[in-house]
Amino acid sequence: MGGDVGLKVTVPASIQFLQDHPDARLILVGDQTALEAELALHGSVARDRLRLHHASQVVGMDESPQLAMKNKKDSSMRVAINLVKEGEAQAAVSAGNTGALMATARFVLKTIPGIDRPAIAKLLPTSKGTSCMLDLGANVDCTPAQLLQFGIMGSELVSSLSGKANPTVGLLNIGSEDIKGNETVKQAAELLKDAALNFYGNVEGNDIYRGTVDVVVCDGFTGNVALKTSEGLAHMIASFLREEFTRSWWTRLCALAAMPVLNHFKKRVDARRYNGASLLGLRGIVVKSHGGTDALGFRYALEQACEEAGSSVIAHIAERVAEQLQHIKQSEAAAN
Amino acid sequence: MGGDVGLKVTVPASIQFLQDHPDARLILVGDQTALEAELALHGSVARDRLRLHHASQVVGMDESPQLAMKNKKDSSMRVAINLVKEGEAQAAVSAGNTGALMATARFVLKTIPGIDRPAIAKLLPTSKGTSCMLDLGANVDCTPAQLLQFGIMGSELVSSLSGKANPTVGLLNIGSEDIKGNETVKQAAELLKDAALNFYGNVEGNDIYRGTVDVVVCDGFTGNVALKTSEGLAHMIASFLREEFTRSWWTRLCALAAMPVLNHFKKRVDARRYNGASLLGLRGIVVKSHGGTDALGFRYALEQACEEAGSSVIAHIAERVAEQLQHIKQSEAAAN
Repeated sequence: MGGDVGLKVTVPASIQFLQDHPDARLILVGDQTALEAELALHGSVARDRLRLHHASQVVGMDESPQLAMKNKKDSSMRVAINLVKEGEAQAAVSAGNTGALMATARFVLKTIPGIDRPAIAKLLPTSKGTSCMLDLGANVDCTPAQLLQFGIMGSELVSSLSGKANPTVGLLNIGSEDIKGNETVKQAAELLKDAALNFYGNVEGNDIYRGTVDVVVCDGFTGNVALKTSEGLAHMIASFLREEFTRSWWTRLCALAAMPVLNHFKKRVDARRYNGASLLGLRGIVVKSHGGTDALGFRYALEQACEEAGSSVIAHIAERVAEQLQHIKQSEAAAN
Repeated sequence: MGGDVGLKVTVPASIQFLQDHPDARLILVGDQTALEAELALHGSVARDRLRLHHASQVVGMDESPQLAMKNKKDSSMRVAINLVKEGEAQAAVSAGNTGALMATARFVLKTIPGIDRPAIAKLLPTSKGTSCMLDLGANVDCTPAQLLQFGIMGSELVSSLSGKANPTVGLLNIGSEDIKGNETVKQAAELLKDAALNFYGNVEGNDIYRGTVDVVVCDGFTGNVALKTSEGLAHMIASFLREEFTRSWWTRLCALAAMPVLNHFKKRVDARRYNGASLLGLRGIVVKSHGGTDALGFRYALEQACEEAGSSVIAHIAERVAEQLQHIKQSEAAAN
């Protein structure tokens, strides 16, 4: 039900997803009548692999997470996450209110032992492929220990999804030297160095899209600003390019000649292809789609959830965090 | 002497700048022999408006600011800033070590009364024109009072340079709602609301390039990450575009057809045109050029210094900060 558009996006995306994945099954959670009506508009639907699950409420995009938690116990979001908890679904995907989704997921699913708070992680395109960045907005203030947890979670997400052994982890800072940054970042660097991780060291903002490391760790404030700044810049560059090619009949002619190349470029930088952020650190898979995306974008969020469900990312995170806790205990015992 | 390349960039840029500005005079500070040798390589130079000032030392790009301050009292950087202090120069421009430049400028010139620490401010291109963003890396941790000072300084820089009365000021945050963000940002919002500023409210990362406000205020950590992330993303997009147009003989042909448009676009997003960051809050004008820029970029940094020198930006900042201090005193007196 969620997102800026709702069923007109989520339903067509779901139908297409089922066509692409003959093994997958989907449960659409929301207003049954509205869902049936939307489904009826589409031709062939693999109804044997598509189940509807009624939920009588919807969390508004601007609703306070606290109020949503209290008053909307039968919201599509809550019911979907309940299905994950009960083992009926292997993952939940939502384009709804991020704060409410995070609060509900945390309340219903709980965090993995050793994880203080979940983080929002996303794969971003880089010059070398993709990198995972977290946290992108769930945690405004982070402790060094949390940043370490983000490093472990990001590392496990990358290795679970890409099969890459021992991904490199970088700590986002404002200079590559050890002395740079605030106290939290400096202490986090010490913890990351000490942990059983492939810690690269500090990275700077320009390293993100350069693909210097596989995992970029930062607090949710910085990460959210970096992500949204990127969205804004990409949008501005695209609109400048469009303006230049539509300036006159002559430039329009140029655009026509360059169309196949421009389309290929456009596809390559298409943000929809990177849609789908993981709420990492929970005892279940929850993926957040951008609220403003279309059916293609929402399909990529479903893909992300599907890939995670096919991996053992949660078990791996739990294992690595337990090892880390053990490691800290041993170090403390040795120090005493 | 500074920057990744040194005189091969700064000298040609200076010569061109003098040609563009028949009223301007330049003092080149550095190794006199090296400067003379570089100048001799260039044809006509307006030597009546170009003076050399010898400085026997150079601060290295990776040198610690503390050591540079202590051991390099005759560095080109220090001597240039001394000239500003003594009133011999109206502004200093450097492509050198940012930390050393900031520390030296602060030590020699001192801050304007009421300004705790200087900030690095830069004009960025937006969909609507340009916006000023600060701090971009001078202050890792900022108090709410400092963020207010940044707002005043940015506002005065924009109105001094563009003539725009009462520029809008936005506070960079991770959500436009008042409740979002950390404690520092929340308190800063209260101070900014209370001040004699055209405070717009919170803005998000995507608002920067959208040009939502004239001035974007943030701490130096967030600002530096946002700026460098932008640099990295712009670089990646440009290289993707290049790759697409050089994929085959056919795409190269397309590029040829689209060349005039692509060149116009390239010029429009050329980072060199926005080179030159102001060290604001000092009792003198100091402009930092990107260390890796070329002669065109360095010319833009000289332009920035020239424009500031032609305005009364420092006097205006001093005036507004004094008013603000008075305002706070009155509010406190009224409260007692």
